[in-house]
Amino acid sequence: MTGPAPLYVVLVHHPVLDRDGAIVTTSITNLDVHDIARSARTYGVRRYFVAHPIPGLRALVERIVAHWRSGWGSRYNPSRFAAMSLVEVVHDLDQAIAAVEQDSGRMPHLIATSAKSVAGSLPFPALAHRLETTDEPYLLVFGTGYGLSDDVLSRCEAQLEPIRGTGDYNHLSVRAAAAIALDRLRANQQGKP
Amino acid sequence: MTGPAPLYVVLVHHPVLDRDGAIVTTSITNLDVHDIARSARTYGVRRYFVAHPIPGLRALVERIVAHWRSGWGSRYNPSRFAAMSLVEVVHDLDQAIAAVEQDSGRMPHLIATSAKSVAGSLPFPALAHRLETTDEPYLLVFGTGYGLSDDVLSRCEAQLEPIRGTGDYNHLSVRAAAAIALDRLRANQQGKP
Repeated sequence: MTGPAPLYVVLVHHPVLDRDGAIVTTSITNLDVHDIARSARTYGVRRYFVAHPIPGLRALVERIVAHWRSGWGSRYNPSRFAAMSLVEVVHDLDQAIAAVEQDSGRMPHLIATSAKSVAGSLPFPALAHRLETTDEPYLLVFGTGYGLSDDVLSRCEAQLEPIRGTGDYNHLSVRAAAAIALDRLRANQQGKP
Repeated sequence: MTGPAPLYVVLVHHPVLDRDGAIVTTSITNLDVHDIARSARTYGVRRYFVAHPIPGLRALVERIVAHWRSGWGSRYNPSRFAAMSLVEVVHDLDQAIAAVEQDSGRMPHLIATSAKSVAGSLPFPALAHRLETTDEPYLLVFGTGYGLSDDVLSRCEAQLEPIRGTGDYNHLSVRAAAAIALDRLRANQQGKP
């Protein structure tokens, strides 16, 4: 089988952890939608799912996305249109998985991301290599708040190694973490289809 | 001389370009302050300068930063305190250069960043290597809006190659671009002082 693998990203707002480790639902951050859509477009991601369980907040994201995808916003800023075209608002991780299956014809491999180290985590170069050499779909799962709940982590077939800088500080924004992860995974695909 | 080089970042709000190439002053984006401060802390940046010519907007950033650096905010979120402690609000690029000189004892090398290709741009691995092997200070210059003006670019001794993904799309947010640039330049310094 030949790559690159169809790559998808989902940003989960529930179930995620708060600072005390309790399971919560986070609110929508407008720039999470914009920034990760732009990074996704840059690195050839097929679709970027924003998952939120609250209908009113899903409707808000739909409205933001619609502004840039049609009418005035799409004419004012065509590059934002290109990025926002990747966004799909879903209820939860399951709906994102179903959408990938519909888009690619297969169930995706679920790869969790986390700022915390775990034994047996997947190094970035190993996943980058896999993505180059398979045509099976991959769904990268990012959490808001203080990270994905154990329930979500246990559903994933692997957890990417945390992004480490020069020291112990591991509090990147999810927007920055998604950008760095996509760069590490896909910058080697520059110029490839 | 031995590295790693003392590294500084400045985010310029004037003079920058608008979509039509005119020179403008952009407004402050709150998450530019937070996200780039967190990325800077992650990658061992010495100080992150937010440069803005309008006193009222500088005062706004000072107030945001003070919230997280002292009193309630610093106790509520110590990791945000650690990031926001790197932020210094300045008037312009010159004031950032002067602050680096005061902090490090030398004039910094100015390295511009841009989403546009130019002949002779500096590849990321070349700058990463330089940063590993010198103790001279470097100031990475990021622009808001549609990028740094020619006036700023011409003051820099080199321009980093643009961040390229898998295709031609080059519209990362400055928050994402700064995160990726720091990762490319400093991830190889993990665990080093």
